[in-house]
Parts: sequence; structure tokens; C-alpha cells
Amino acid sequence: MKLSGPFKQIITLNNLPLKGKLNDESLEIVTNGGILTKNGIIRQVGSFDSLKQDFPDSEIDLIEGEQIALPAFVDAHTHICFGGNRANDFAMRNAGKTYLEIAESGGGIWSSVEHTRNASEEDLVEGILKRVKQLIKQGITTVEIKSGYGLNLEEELKMLRAVKKAQSHTNATLIPTCLSAHLKPKDFEGTSGEYLNYILEEILPKVKEENLADRVDIFIERSAFQPKESKLFLKKAKQLGFKITVHADQFTAGSSRIAVEVGAKSADHLEATADEDIEFLANSNTVAIALPGASLGLGEPFSPARKILDKGGILAIATDWNPGSAPMGNLVTQASILATYQKLTTAEVLAAITFRAAFALDLEDRGILTEGKKADFITYETDNFQNILYQQGSLLPAHVYINGEKIL
Amino acid sequence: MKLSGPFKQIITLNNLPLKGKLNDESLEIVTNGGILTKNGIIRQVGSFDSLKQDFPDSEIDLIEGEQIALPAFVDAHTHICFGGNRANDFAMRNAGKTYLEIAESGGGIWSSVEHTRNASEEDLVEGILKRVKQLIKQGITTVEIKSGYGLNLEEELKMLRAVKKAQSHTNATLIPTCLSAHLKPKDFEGTSGEYLNYILEEILPKVKEENLADRVDIFIERSAFQPKESKLFLKKAKQLGFKITVHADQFTAGSSRIAVEVGAKSADHLEATADEDIEFLANSNTVAIALPGASLGLGEPFSPARKILDKGGILAIATDWNPGSAPMGNLVTQASILATYQKLTTAEVLAAITFRAAFALDLEDRGILTEGKKADFITYETDNFQNILYQQGSLLPAHVYINGEKIL
Ligand SMILES: [Zn+2]
Ligand SMILES: [Zn+2]
Repeated sequence: MKLSGPFKQIITLNNLPLKGKLNDESLEIVTNGGILTKNGIIRQVGSFDSLKQDFPDSEIDLIEGEQIALPAFVDAHTHICFGGNRANDFAMRNAGKTYLEIAESGGGIWSSVEHTRNASEEDLVEGILKRVKQLIKQGITTVEIKSGYGLNLEEELKMLRAVKKAQSHTNATLIPTCLSAHLKPKDFEGTSGEYLNYILEEILPKVKEENLADRVDIFIERSAFQPKESKLFLKKAKQLGFKITVHADQFTAGSSRIAVEVGAKSADHLEATADEDIEFLANSNTVAIALPGASLGLGEPFSPARKILDKGGILAIATDWNPGSAPMGNLVTQASILATYQKLTTAEVLAAITFRAAFALDLEDRGILTEGKKADFITYETDNFQNILYQQGSLLPAHVYINGEKIL
Repeated sequence: MKLSGPFKQIITLNNLPLKGKLNDESLEIVTNGGILTKNGIIRQVGSFDSLKQDFPDSEIDLIEGEQIALPAFVDAHTHICFGGNRANDFAMRNAGKTYLEIAESGGGIWSSVEHTRNASEEDLVEGILKRVKQLIKQGITTVEIKSGYGLNLEEELKMLRAVKKAQSHTNATLIPTCLSAHLKPKDFEGTSGEYLNYILEEILPKVKEENLADRVDIFIERSAFQPKESKLFLKKAKQLGFKITVHADQFTAGSSRIAVEVGAKSADHLEATADEDIEFLANSNTVAIALPGASLGLGEPFSPARKILDKGGILAIATDWNPGSAPMGNLVTQASILATYQKLTTAEVLAAITFRAAFALDLEDRGILTEGKKADFITYETDNFQNILYQQGSLLPAHVYINGEKIL
């Protein structure tokens, strides 16, 4: 057994509801705390001195100076498996160029598809690991990663195999998601409905066979897939045994309702969600994932996080880190900014990037510091947990633990 | 003489107008470039190979790998001399508490005044140097710093002396500004007009005598100083020989007009500036300083940067780094986010944090890489300058040079 501490504060996030609003007074804070772990699992969280007395044979992982501890963060929505770079898109968009002008100059999502297709599996693995390293520095130890820049059998499998290979080189947990339904590729001959059938018939069986992902995502939007065909696709994907998540309501309202109707684990984006759909979503167990990085990358409004919580929904916050619309990749900065515009409490933000985000990924083993949970936790050199969001991302963790081991 | 290079790109920012909009095509980019310096001043910027041939006796500062160079950044508006911390204000504000509730719980600006008054001059110096170090890491080598948490003769002088002392410990240029007119302190017996007279009669003569600052600022706002008394104050401060800058139009329109009328170097904030006042400001040589950090810290709208440029104004962007409304302190993140919401070109953003910001501080010796200018420049390990804003602050400089010397 191993005892880490003493920590000035441990923010356990224990005993908080999965759904709805939270105030900071409801946070369980253990002062002068210790975290006792065994084989990567938390055995007990409590007074450091008491734990030391009760478990005298523990190996002591002594914390120097004033530090606080909390659960490691979960980034439940990323696209960090990609080739190329879209800096020129970003500059053109800010210079007022249209989507079409950007596409015509060789930019847009299709350029990511081409660069990803041209990349080797090894290149992709390297890119993933580089970005995961940056996320770990921010205290994130669980990272969802989507395919969706391959857009045919071979290339989608290459992306998902790259995620699987990257997993063997990092202690962070990588959760792959098949997003072959990101858009219908230029070079697919047929309708979007036919492309969705191609995914169902050609890609998903292979994904299953190679055990590359158990989650399926789709981008429902005017420019991508339409509501009716999408709903049919999701039902069939579910029948094949996949869990469902949806890119919903980014620019057009309506698709979050489909996500709820098919029992999706999460509906992500929601910048354009209509009030009645917020209520519908909030009454379900589908997690609402706000992606402030996409708002900040495009200069668009934020998702209605406050309303989602007020209506009793499950709110998570993720980076959406991707080369096009969300190139920043800094979860704490984004979550803190969302909090200022949407008026979210510290507890609501911390829940949204820990256990509520983990729930969206069907990972109920983490995101809370209590007995039996995975010992993924982070520490900050500060005397108060409020400083984390207050500094809006400029305060980085002092240490990051995965399975009870200090990896940073 | 010293020759730094070769750089894949040098973005000189040379030959750009002081006023109005800029497109990226107008940027002068020297490829495979070198920067020749002598005694901290740029002698020539051009082809590395040619410079090496033409000045064979130069000491070579060889750049490894692929790097680009550009002028170091200027942060023309900060409040980084302070004691204490306002993390609890931030959390309370996001939890929906009012200004009054925050003040009553011991927060608000008055808590910064108390903590600053309770700090020793040495504490303040230490705090300034810690924050300047963080700014230097981002590529900022010129930092404006305001007083304004002392609010009486003794304490305001303490703050400005701390800035002066900090200057003797850093190579970065610190530009002090007297902001005794931040608000009328609780413990001043008299009207706000009488307090402004106290500043004019008691504080400013001492500031001048000790050579602590040659710039005077005032916060014109309903909750602080009113337009009429402020204008009178600024005119008198100018008569005393001070340069003027104004906290203008943050929540209420009208004060940017006063800034222009008194010939202020800059009008800062401008979130609430009326359209006709934008035009008035744009027709002047008063720099419009947008402070996106305050918008992001409070969850408020951004300053109308696009309109200011379109009307032909001089736009700068600064952090407003302060413990209350703008705790982030990351200029590139903030400038890049402002660019996505206000649709600013890369050239407009780079100008706004280099030579246009320097102009607001009356420093025409920097912010451009060309003969005769101060050799403050930064490098990034990247192949394209567009990546700097694209990564929204997550790409940090590889090296920072001050007066031609690599200090980082
Ligand atoms: Zn996405
Ligand atoms: Zn300010």
C-alpha cells in the first residue's frame, strides 16, 4: 500500500449527484489529507496522519510544500488523431473569408482528410502521443479520440489502429470512437444514406472484429448528415452493439433530440439547442457535453450550460481538440471561460471535467477520489482549489498520478 | 556585432501603417533570415547567408532546427503590482453573486487595496517579478504596470517604488503608470472631486519628484469617477507634464471621447463604446486598447476591435492582468480569442501586440524588426507564423531576446 500526502486540501468530488446544479458548499474537502492506494486503486481518502497511523507499513509518497489534490480530468471529446495543420484556415476565417473560399484555397475539413490519409499509421501514433502528453500536463488522464478523417474502410481502420497502438505507449486511458459518419467523403460514389449504409456494412463489422472501438458517433448537421438518415443509422449501430454519441445542434437545432431518443451516452456541442430540447435532454441520462473550444476557435456563442444544469441535466465539458475549429486543446482555460460566460460554479465545472465526463464515456470507475476508484489524481501547488479555475489555465498541475503512480 | 539565425521566417512587421486595417499579404517576411545586432540595437535584417558574408567578423548566434522570429510583444495595460488574490470573487461571480454580495463577503477591489497596503515594498517587488517572468515566457518584453491599489500618498508611492525597484532586477522594460484615480478610497474623507484634487496636489508632485512615473491614468465609470471631474483632472495632470491614458467605456459609453479630447495616448477597455465615439476615436492618434482578458474574466462582450480598425483607428491589445476582473494574464490566448470573435487578421493582431502597443506607451524604438530598433525579438519552433495565433496560446516561444541577448 502507498500513502500520498499530506495535502492541504483534497477535493474528493465524492457524494455529488450525477445530475443537475451544484454549489461549492457541497464539495467534500479533506484538509491535511492523504490518499491510500493499492495496485492502482484508491483504498481510502482521509486524514494523512490517521492513515499513516492506521497503515504503518504503507510506502509514504511524501508531498513537499503546500499542495492540493483532486481527481484527474477527463476529456470526453477530441479529434487528436490527424495529419496536417489548419493554421491557414484559422487565419482566413478571422480575415473574414467564407467556408467556400477556405475550401477552394485547399483548406477546410477535406484538407485534414487528405493529410490524414497521406500520413502513415506511425505518423498518426506519434501525433496522438504528442497531444496526449500535452493533455496529461494539464491533468487529463482519460482522453476520448475519434476517427473521422479517414472516411473509407482502410483509412478509418488506420486511424483507429493508431489510437490502439498509441494506447500501448501511454498510461493515460484512450477511448476510441468511430466517427466515420463525420461527413460523406467527396470520393464516395452515392448518397449520404448509402455512405451511412457503407459504414454499417463495411466499416463497423471490421471495427468490431478488430476490437478497435465500441462507440459510434455521427455529425448531424445541414452540411453533414440529415436527421432522418442519422437516426436510422444510430439505431442500426446500436443493434450492432455499439454505444452511441452524437455531434448535435452545433449550428442547427434538433439533433440533440435524436441523441436522447436513441439513448446516446452523450450529445455534444449544443450551441444551437432550442429551449424545449434542453428540457428533453436534461430529463434523460444522455450527457450534455459543452465544447467551449469550438466556440473560442470559431468565435461562436457558447453552449447553454447554465440552462442544462438548471433543468437538471448532466453537463460535461470537453476540448473538441481538432485541427479545424478547436485548435487550442486547453481544457481548463476553456472550462474556466465557459464558467464566466455561462455562470457555472467551481463545483459544476470540476464535476463536468471529472466524473460527469467519465459517465459520458461509461467509465464509472474514475473521476471521484473515494474507495474502489481508479487512483488517477492530480496535485497543484496552491493553497486553495478555487485558484485552478481563477487562473484560467495558467496554473498547471504540479504532479499527475495514474493508477497511484506519479507520472509527472 | 552579432548575427542571429538562420530563421525560416522573420516577420519584421516593417513598413506597416500605424493606423487602420491590415491584411496578412502586407506582412514583410524574410525567409532564411538573419538579425544583425550591435549593442542591443538592430543593425540589419536580411538573408542570413548574405549577412554572414557581408559581416564575416560577427559573432554567430546559430539557431538550431526550424524557427521563426518576430518582434517581442508589448503588454500596454496591466495591474500586476498587487497583494492578495481574488479567487473567491471569481468563484462567487460565476456562482451568480452580485457585486455587493462579493464586497460584503470581504471581496471586491477593496480587498486588493487592503492586501496591497498590507504588503511590504519587497513583497510587491517579488510579486511583480514573478508575473513579469510569466509574461516573458510568453514573449512579452515590455510591460506597463499601474498603481491604484494604494489610494493614498504613502501607499501609491510604495507601489510605484516597487515597480522602479523591480525594474532594476529585470531586463524587460517596465513602464509605470500612476492610477491613484482608480477609485475614491473608502477612507478618504471628502468628495471624489476632492480626492482627485488630493492626487493632483499631494501625490503627483511627489511622483514627479521621485521620477516614479510620467503617465497618469483614471477610471472613468459610474462606479468610479464622473466625466466632468475626470476631464478637469486629466487636463491638470497634463499641465503637470504627465502623459495621459484612460480606463474608458468599460460599462458606460462616453469616456473615450474625453480621452481623445484631452489628447490621451490611449483609451483602454471600450467594451461599451458607442458607434459615433468609435469614429471620433479612430480619427485621433489615441490608441484604442482592447482588453479581452477582462471580457473573458467577467464573461462580458469584447471591445469593438473590428470597427475600430475599419474606421481607421489604432488598435492595441493588452492583458489588463489584475487580480479581480482579468486573472489569466495570457496575452496570446486572449488576442487570439479576440481575433475569432472580432474577425481580426493575423497582421492586425501582431501589430496590436507589438508596434501599435508600443506607440501607446510612447515607445517608438521597438515592436518592429528593422535597423535602429531595440533588438527585442522572440523565436518559435514552428515553420509558419500563423501557428502562433492558431494554437491560441499553447505554442510558447522557444527563445526570447532582449537587447540582442538570449535571455530565455
Ligand atoms: Zn467534435
Ligand atoms: Zn485596467
